[in-house]
Amino acid sequence: MTFQPVLIAGQWRDAESVGSFHAVNPATGQPLPGEYPVSAWADCDRALAAAIQAAESLRHVPPEQIGRFLDRFAERIDARKAELVEQAHRETALPSSPRLADVELPRTTNQLREAAAAAREGSWALPTIDTKLNIRSIMAPIGPVAVFGPNNFPFAFNGAAGGDFAAAIAAGNPVIAKGHPLHPGTTRMLAEEAFNAVTEVNLHPATVQLVYRIKPDAGSRLVSDRRIGATAFTGSRSGGLALKAAADKVGKPIYLEMSSINPVVILPGALGERGPKVAEEFAGSCLLGGGQFCTNPGLVILLAGETTEQFISITKQAFEKATPPPLLSADVARSLGESVRTLRDAGAELITAASDVAIGCHPNSLLRVSGEHFLKEPEKLQTEAFGSVSLLVVARDVAEAEAVIDHLEGNLTGSIYSDGGGKDEPLYAKLAPRLRQQVGRLLNDKMPTGVAVSPGMNHGGPFPATGHPGFTAVGIPASLRRFAALHSYDNVRPNRLPAALRDENPNGRMWRLIDGEWTQRGYNRTSL
Amino acid sequence: MTFQPVLIAGQWRDAESVGSFHAVNPATGQPLPGEYPVSAWADCDRALAAAIQAAESLRHVPPEQIGRFLDRFAERIDARKAELVEQAHRETALPSSPRLADVELPRTTNQLREAAAAAREGSWALPTIDTKLNIRSIMAPIGPVAVFGPNNFPFAFNGAAGGDFAAAIAAGNPVIAKGHPLHPGTTRMLAEEAFNAVTEVNLHPATVQLVYRIKPDAGSRLVSDRRIGATAFTGSRSGGLALKAAADKVGKPIYLEMSSINPVVILPGALGERGPKVAEEFAGSCLLGGGQFCTNPGLVILLAGETTEQFISITKQAFEKATPPPLLSADVARSLGESVRTLRDAGAELITAASDVAIGCHPNSLLRVSGEHFLKEPEKLQTEAFGSVSLLVVARDVAEAEAVIDHLEGNLTGSIYSDGGGKDEPLYAKLAPRLRQQVGRLLNDKMPTGVAVSPGMNHGGPFPATGHPGFTAVGIPASLRRFAALHSYDNVRPNRLPAALRDENPNGRMWRLIDGEWTQRGYNRTSL
Repeated sequence: MTFQPVLIAGQWRDAESVGSFHAVNPATGQPLPGEYPVSAWADCDRALAAAIQAAESLRHVPPEQIGRFLDRFAERIDARKAELVEQAHRETALPSSPRLADVELPRTTNQLREAAAAAREGSWALPTIDTKLNIRSIMAPIGPVAVFGPNNFPFAFNGAAGGDFAAAIAAGNPVIAKGHPLHPGTTRMLAEEAFNAVTEVNLHPATVQLVYRIKPDAGSRLVSDRRIGATAFTGSRSGGLALKAAADKVGKPIYLEMSSINPVVILPGALGERGPKVAEEFAGSCLLGGGQFCTNPGLVILLAGETTEQFISITKQAFEKATPPPLLSADVARSLGESVRTLRDAGAELITAASDVAIGCHPNSLLRVSGEHFLKEPEKLQTEAFGSVSLLVVARDVAEAEAVIDHLEGNLTGSIYSDGGGKDEPLYAKLAPRLRQQVGRLLNDKMPTGVAVSPGMNHGGPFPATGHPGFTAVGIPASLRRFAALHSYDNVRPNRLPAALRDENPNGRMWRLIDGEWTQRGYNRTSL
Repeated sequence: MTFQPVLIAGQWRDAESVGSFHAVNPATGQPLPGEYPVSAWADCDRALAAAIQAAESLRHVPPEQIGRFLDRFAERIDARKAELVEQAHRETALPSSPRLADVELPRTTNQLREAAAAAREGSWALPTIDTKLNIRSIMAPIGPVAVFGPNNFPFAFNGAAGGDFAAAIAAGNPVIAKGHPLHPGTTRMLAEEAFNAVTEVNLHPATVQLVYRIKPDAGSRLVSDRRIGATAFTGSRSGGLALKAAADKVGKPIYLEMSSINPVVILPGALGERGPKVAEEFAGSCLLGGGQFCTNPGLVILLAGETTEQFISITKQAFEKATPPPLLSADVARSLGESVRTLRDAGAELITAASDVAIGCHPNSLLRVSGEHFLKEPEKLQTEAFGSVSLLVVARDVAEAEAVIDHLEGNLTGSIYSDGGGKDEPLYAKLAPRLRQQVGRLLNDKMPTGVAVSPGMNHGGPFPATGHPGFTAVGIPASLRRFAALHSYDNVRPNRLPAALRDENPNGRMWRLIDGEWTQRGYNRTSL
């Protein structure tokens, strides 16, 4: 039997395989055509050897060429859009429209184009010049980057096309993509277009490489190999922590986006003012895409009272009324069921009615627990339920709500809803500073789903949401800096400096920190 | 017996001790007065409890007040200079002048003053505003910072006054200082002045706390405690790696400055042009301060030839002629002897004559090995010898020199000496890109000792020089960002935003990235 080829060192070639797998249509439970290899370590080893060549080559490539690659890749994705959407739909059961065709694919190409612009402009690297001491620094490419894509975004976070990919390439590094096994066909198509764009703009052929799946021990070896620069991983906490342990041991940077339950605090004033609207927003956010988002609102903190009961009642109806879509895989459905069981075993009460669901689906589920009880089992009651499931924590009073917030683990986001008239202001002042410390992004009157590609975005947060609270996976320029090492040049002769650190501004647009001032101007050594 | 008091929660109090120690005068081998406690975990626990209160308080303190604290602390150090220098001299045997009084102490107060200016100005936090989407972000205080100071800089890297301390405080965090056991008296004096300044400007009393010494298990607990924000450690590789393992496991940021041998490549043209001068520079750098610098040039790469033999011969004379000063401790001297033995056992030849040395000293030592042999034992031959010891690696040809560089571990610095006429240019072009990847700071025609406090500095580098190649321990503004978490504000109401993210510029001087432009201006929401 022939497996689908991997992309290594500029060639679509047979994998050195230690097994194989195929994708499944989650809507039917039926296998999809195409058998994909589980790569042996030898594939990773070859990819690493080629990647260090590519990394060396990329260090001498003008930023314009990297920008052109990213732009051409985006254009190629657009040109193959129909086929990509169809394949991704088959492999994930996510709706072709609007989700895949009108939201996720445009987001993906936009990210690539923004990354292209950032690569060309160069300010992301914080070029810094101390003219008096002639010491200069810049964030420079870190070396080959391994990108492990997640199951839930076949385009926008794909290892071969998503946000981490775009950031790593824009920062000047080659990528070794580890596709997610649930959508190998989509990943292959994206890698094909990436590689075609590589060829077209004449970058080193190993700038983009692809394996579909590797065993955990090969993953640990990959992220800790001497030749790797850094790793980006989006996925489960257990998978992320295993890779982190391997990378940390040898000081290799690894950026993880793991679990998050994204607490939403809804204050009484907001419920009194617009309870039904907030309930609708919450249900919409939690039910969106089967709840399979890293920023799904999985925990709601409410204060006991009549408007809270009304909110719960409206939300319950919305959850019961909505038809749950097929989840990304039978494993996702199974794991979701287990999480709900864990929450119930820890004392949460399931308040939505049991319902029969179609194959591959899981009932939309609301659970409820008192603040007092939450504080008895804070760890178990923060079990991530990846799907349309949320736990409502009803606190007796403000002090209990504060305690609940103080017991939260690190999360990507935290939202607070309050009224427009100022009644909630004292409560906000008490709760927001506590919530702020536990999350990467704080929202007002807004649900956390929807992670805009904005320079002000933080798609990151304290552990265990990620591995380090200083970095974001989304948002340019900051996301690029994850894939860079700080390089200082001390008394280095002018002709030997990288272009971005010479006296003249290399493109007239790059922002540089010269003697404490951010400027797009050059600096004339002789005039000082 | 009464031990010296620790500083916890705003009080100089008796430690909960599990032992005690005293300082030793390295020049005489005699114990110095004062018995200091080894703190039990209970001291760390209390310090952490107080530190989270301080962290909360500091979040509401205007930057001006933090700036004033740092300035007042610097002034108080200046006022107590004579006593501090005397004490540090007794505890370290480092020369009172110029080293302690004229170099290290002014550097320390300058750092504090630069940190004060950075805190007041606020640009270090990279405030970012996306006006279209109303998403804003800033690097915000990360929480209590534990600072482990090293043995070799009683002032400038002291846990209670040095670069990490200044950066952590300027970023808005309280510090729990872990002094170095070799100079507890100096550390106590510094902490006294820090605490007096805290009181004077009315900061939370637990803004600065001090323990002198803790057992390794307490250290691991401290850096991984839920209440800690981040840790900065400067010291040995084994100590750093143990703390790193504990912190990594729970996703707590830890910044380590561990071992570095700081390779210096000297090209034939430079030797032909100014060999004796380069030899003098090298010997001066390696012999400075008994070689007890993180940036001591411990490895020199040379190409075989007559000028190289001349260089070696001059250097050898300089090493033999110079009187070795007492080292920081008997342990440092013992460990240095062991490192030299490891290098010799691995095949390096000791080329300086054996010499009798005074108590607490170690002979200045040059070792030599061929490039060919180095490549057989690259790991052992990179053993750090913390002192006036350097290994000369003589490569047969350029290819061998390239291979030697490719086998280097991560280092803080790498230097290349070349001629002024251009003869070395082709060699530089071959070797510099390789060396660049292994080091944090690349130097031309300059020895690595002397780490200027410059915005362009990188006192960092790839593992095992540090734990992450993206961060620097020296140089403002970048060093401050180690102690910050990225905070994004999405749709947050204007009056609830931190001052630095509101439309108006809070001080008219802060640089903010607004819609892709760095500016010191405000932004008028209504005018758009």
